Amino acid sequence: MSASPRVIRKSIGNFLEDFVPGALFRHKGGKTVTEGLFTTFTEFSMTTNPLAKNARYARAYGFDGLVCPPGLVMLVAFSQTVEDVSENARANLEYIDMRFGAPVYVGDTLEVETKVLGVIGSRSNPRLGVVHVQSTARKNRGSRDEAVVLTWQRKVQVWKRDESAELHAGTAEPDPIDCELWLPRYEPTRDYKALAHLTNPDTYFEDFEPGTRIEHSRGRTMTSEHIHLTAVLDNTSQVHCNQFMIDLDPEQYVGGELIIFGGIPFVLCLGLSCPNVGDNALADAVYRTGRHSAPLFAGDTVFAATEILARRDHPTREDVGLLDTRLLGHKFVRANAGEPAAEGAPAGWRKVPIFELERSLVVKRRSHYA
Amino acid sequence: MSASPRVIRKSIGNFLEDFVPGALFRHKGGKTVTEGLFTTFTEFSMTTNPLAKNARYARAYGFDGLVCPPGLVMLVAFSQTVEDVSENARANLEYIDMRFGAPVYVGDTLEVETKVLGVIGSRSNPRLGVVHVQSTARKNRGSRDEAVVLTWQRKVQVWKRDESAELHAGTAEPDPIDCELWLPRYEPTRDYKALAHLTNPDTYFEDFEPGTRIEHSRGRTMTSEHIHLTAVLDNTSQVHCNQFMIDLDPEQYVGGELIIFGGIPFVLCLGLSCPNVGDNALADAVYRTGRHSAPLFAGDTVFAATEILARRDHPTREDVGLLDTRLLGHKFVRANAGEPAAEGAPAGWRKVPIFELERSLVVKRRSHYA
Amino acid sequence: MSASPRVIRKSIGNFLEDFVPGALFRHKGGKTVTEGLFTTFTEFSMTTNPLAKNARYARAYGFDGLVCPPGLVMLVAFSQTVEDVSENARANLEYIDMRFGAPVYVGDTLEVETKVLGVIGSRSNPRLGVVHVQSTARKNRGSRDEAVVLTWQRKVQVWKRDESAELHAGTAEPDPIDCELWLPRYEPTRDYKALAHLTNPDTYFEDFEPGTRIEHSRGRTMTSEHIHLTAVLDNTSQVHCNQFMIDLDPEQYVGGELIIFGGIPFVLCLGLSCPNVGDNALADAVYRTGRHSAPLFAGDTVFAATEILARRDHPTREDVGLLDTRLLGHKFVRANAGEPAAEGAPAGWRKVPIFELERSLVVKRRSHYA
Repeated sequence: MSASPRVIRKSIGNFLEDFVPGALFRHKGGKTVTEGLFTTFTEFSMTTNPLAKNARYARAYGFDGLVCPPGLVMLVAFSQTVEDVSENARANLEYIDMRFGAPVYVGDTLEVETKVLGVIGSRSNPRLGVVHVQSTARKNRGSRDEAVVLTWQRKVQVWKRDESAELHAGTAEPDPIDCELWLPRYEPTRDYKALAHLTNPDTYFEDFEPGTRIEHSRGRTMTSEHIHLTAVLDNTSQVHCNQFMIDLDPEQYVGGELIIFGGIPFVLCLGLSCPNVGDNALADAVYRTGRHSAPLFAGDTVFAATEILARRDHPTREDVGLLDTRLLGHKFVRANAGEPAAEGAPAGWRKVPIFELERSLVVKRRSHYA
Repeated sequence: MSASPRVIRKSIGNFLEDFVPGALFRHKGGKTVTEGLFTTFTEFSMTTNPLAKNARYARAYGFDGLVCPPGLVMLVAFSQTVEDVSENARANLEYIDMRFGAPVYVGDTLEVETKVLGVIGSRSNPRLGVVHVQSTARKNRGSRDEAVVLTWQRKVQVWKRDESAELHAGTAEPDPIDCELWLPRYEPTRDYKALAHLTNPDTYFEDFEPGTRIEHSRGRTMTSEHIHLTAVLDNTSQVHCNQFMIDLDPEQYVGGELIIFGGIPFVLCLGLSCPNVGDNALADAVYRTGRHSAPLFAGDTVFAATEILARRDHPTREDVGLLDTRLLGHKFVRANAGEPAAEGAPAGWRKVPIFELERSLVVKRRSHYA
Repeated sequence: MSASPRVIRKSIGNFLEDFVPGALFRHKGGKTVTEGLFTTFTEFSMTTNPLAKNARYARAYGFDGLVCPPGLVMLVAFSQTVEDVSENARANLEYIDMRFGAPVYVGDTLEVETKVLGVIGSRSNPRLGVVHVQSTARKNRGSRDEAVVLTWQRKVQVWKRDESAELHAGTAEPDPIDCELWLPRYEPTRDYKALAHLTNPDTYFEDFEPGTRIEHSRGRTMTSEHIHLTAVLDNTSQVHCNQFMIDLDPEQYVGGELIIFGGIPFVLCLGLSCPNVGDNALADAVYRTGRHSAPLFAGDTVFAATEILARRDHPTREDVGLLDTRLLGHKFVRANAGEPAAEGAPAGWRKVPIFELERSLVVKRRSHYA
C-alpha cells in the first residue's frame, strides 16, 4: 500500500438538512431477540412481572412463552432508529403516542421504519432544529407471524451539518398504523388462582386509587455498565460510549462525562415500579407522552414513583381494566452549601427529576384472577 | 391529578415480628433458566466442569444437555426467597443441610417455598432476632418433569419493624422433603474414555488424599459488576445496589459502600476450586453447613482453598465415590503499619477468611471413566 | 482434619521447557455456543452485519440461523488454547494464517487441538523463549455436522519454570488441515434485493478502492467489564483478572494494572470497522498475520481504521469478490509536556497503535445482491 493513502472518513447518520417531510427510512440491521438479550435487559430493569420471568406462568396465561417486557420492546425498537434519526442529535425532546401491539417472544426478529413528519429550524440557534418522526416496529416480516409490535412518534433536536444549508422545513401527515394491543383471552376454565401467589396480592385493578402517589421503595445505582448495555441495544451514539471524544472538548458535553442513554432510566423506572404497579398487568397499552428532564451519569442512583391518574373499564373485556398513571423518575444530588432544605429530599441533598412518562396499563381484576 | 396526592410507601419484605413458626411462604415470581442466565453465571464463576460448558460431553454422560452448575442452582433458588425472608435482614448466619436433587437445564422453571422453623429474639439487641427457615426449590411444577432440585435450611438475623412488637417466638418441625440426588447411570457401553481429555487427569476420586489442603492458584478481582449480577438473580436487597441509601448513613453500613451479595463469593469459590476439585464430579450432593465470615467489596480479589476431609464409597454405585471437603474463601487486605507479618499472607498484607462451606461431591473413579 | 494439612499447590499451564515439537494438546473443556455467549460478544463488539443480528436475513441467505461473527469464532477457539499454551506467556507475538471454515451457530460445540511446531530459547533472556503452535477448532465432533471452523498458527513468548531446564528446541511440520470456507450458494431465485436496505448501500465489493484508508468514525471506551468478558471466554490468564497479584509486584506488570485480553481489542476493531467494511461481507476468509503493538487498559478508548489493499475475483464465484485489507487499531494517550504535536492526533495527545491484522473478506457484489 502506498505511503499516503487517500483517507476516507464516512459521516454517520443524518443531519437536520437531510430530513425531508414525508420521507421514509427503512432502518438497517434488524434485531432478533435472543435469550441473552432477553435476560440482560429483563433482569437489569428489575421487572417483577412473572410473564417475563416464569415460562410456566406465561404459558398458563395463553402466551407462547416468556414475554418481552414493554421496556425491552421499546428499547430494541427505538435503538434501531438511532443511526438514521438521532446519531447527530443534541437531545431527545419527547416520546409521543407510543402504542404496543403484538407480544414479542425470544426468537422474534424486529425491523423498524420511520417516516419524517416534520422539520423546523430553531429560531435561537442556527445550528439546530427539531425533527418530528413516526416509527413503527414489526416482527417477523414476510412470515405468517408478521405483526406490528410498537408504533410511536418522537421529537428530537438535531444538529445541522452545515449551518448555511437550506432546510426541508414543513410537515407531513402521520400514516395510519394498524397497531392493536394483543391480549390473551380470558378463559374461565383456566386455573388462574393456582398461580396467584406468584404476584403481589395488592396490585390488582381494584387496588389502585386515583389521586394517590406510590413512592417505590427500591433504588438502583448505575455504573459504567451502561456502556455495555447501550452497545447490546445497537445504540451507537458516541456520547454514551466514547470518553475520548468528551475529553477533547469536555465543556461541550454535560458534566464532561459519558451520558447514560435515556432508554436506560426509561426501563429502570418501569422496573422499579413493577412490584407496586405492574406485576399484575397483562400489558402496557400506550405511553401518551414522555420526556427526560435531566441527564443520568454512572454513580447516580435511580428512584421512581407512580401517580395513579385514572381507572377505566376496558371497552370489551370484564376481566381487566385500564389504569392511567404517571411514572416519575428521580435521583438525588448533593445540595450546595447554604442551599435551603428541599422538599422530598434528605438534608444536604436535592431531588432531581430525570424522567416522566404518561403510561396506561391493562391490569387484571382480582375478581377474575385471584 | 390533585396537587397533593396521598402518598403511599409500601413496605417490602417481612420483619422479625411477621414470622410465625410453621407458616409457609410460596415465593413470588419463579424463574425460568434462559441461556442468558446460564451463561452469565456459569462463566462468571469460572467453573471448568464440561457438564456445564460442553453439550456434547453432557449428553454423552446421559444428561439432557448443558447442566446448570450447583452454584447457579443455589443462586437462583436462594434468591427467590430473599424478598420474603431476608429483605430486612442484617446478616445471613448459616446455610444448613443444602441438598441437591434433580439436575436443572436451560428452559426449566424454578419455584420456591419456605417454611418457618424458628423465631427467637436477641438477648442483647431488642431490635434483632434470628429466623430459622427451610426452603425447597422445585422445577416445572404441575408438569411430568416436576422435581425437587434443592432443599436447604438457613438461619438469618432479621430486624424488627417495631421494637415493642410481640414476637411469635417458637419452633416448628422441618417438613420431610423427598430430595434424592439424580445421577446419570453408568453404562459400560458408553465410550467415556474418548472424552477423558476434556477434564483434568488428576481430579478423579482416586486422586484425593484426606488430610491435604489444595490452594487453588487462581484469583478473581470483583468489580461493580456485582450490582448487575445480583439484579440478574432477582435479589433486590438494597445493600447490594443502592449507594444513595448508604451515602445517607454510611456508618450504619460496613465500610460505607455496597456489600457484594454473599451468593457471589459462594459461586466464585466453587468455580475457583473447580479445576482442582470439581471438574470430574458428576454432581454436588450436599452442603452440610456454610457461612460468610467477612464482607466482600468491589475491588477485592477472591481466592479459595479446599481441604480434603474424607473419601467414602457411594452406597449403591461402584463408578463414583463421595468426597467430603471444606471449601474456604479468602481475600487479602493491607496490614496496618507495625502489624506483625501474618501467616499465609505476603508482607504488608493480612489474609481475611470470607467464606466456608462443608461440601460433599460425587466424583467419578478413574477406574471407570478414564 | 488435622491442624497442619499437607498443602498442595498445583501448577497451571505449561512452561517453555514443557513444549515438545510435534506434540499435540487436546484442550480441555470445549465450549457450546449459547445465546448468552452469542449476544454478549456480538453486541459488545458493535458488529453491524445482519447475518449476526437478524435471523430472518441470515436464513434468507441460506444460513441455518444467526451466524457467529468471525471475531466470536476466533475468541472462543483461541481461548480454549490459553491454559495449555499461554497461561504462562509473557506476550502473544503473532497470529499467522488464521483460516475460517464452516459457519458457527448457536448450539454448536467447539473443541480445539494444538500441535507444537517450534520451540526456541531467547538469546537475550535465559528465562524466556518462543513457542510456535498450530491450532484447529472443530465443531460437533463425532456427529454428522463435524467440521473445521478455524485453523491458525501463532507464536507466543513463554516463561521458563526453571531457568536451568533443558529445552526441547526444534521444529515440526504443520499438519495439513482441510479447512475450506463455507459460503451459502448464490441462488438467483432468492429475492436478495428485498433485504438490501438492511445493510449499508456503499459497502459492496464494487465500492472499495485499493489505496484508500477508511477512518472508522466510532470509538468505544473500555471499562473494567473486560474482566467479566474474559471470564466468559474461559480465558483464565491471571494478568487479566487478578489485581492482587499485580499489587504484590506492580513493577513486573505494565502500568501496574490489569491488562485487557488481546482478544477484546481484536473483536472490537473488527466491530468498529463493520459498518464501513464488513456489513456486506458473507464471511471473513483469512487473517494472514496479526499482532498487538501496545497494551490496552480500562479507561482507554479504542478506534480503528482499514486500509484497502487489493480487490480480487473469487476463484469460482461471480457473485462475490475477495477484499484484502489491513485493519488497524489505535488509542490516544496524553502527550508529555513539551512533546511536539503528533501526526493524526489532536493537540496534547499521542496516537498509539494497538493492533494490526491482515484481513481478507468475501464481499457481495452489488451487481448480484442490490
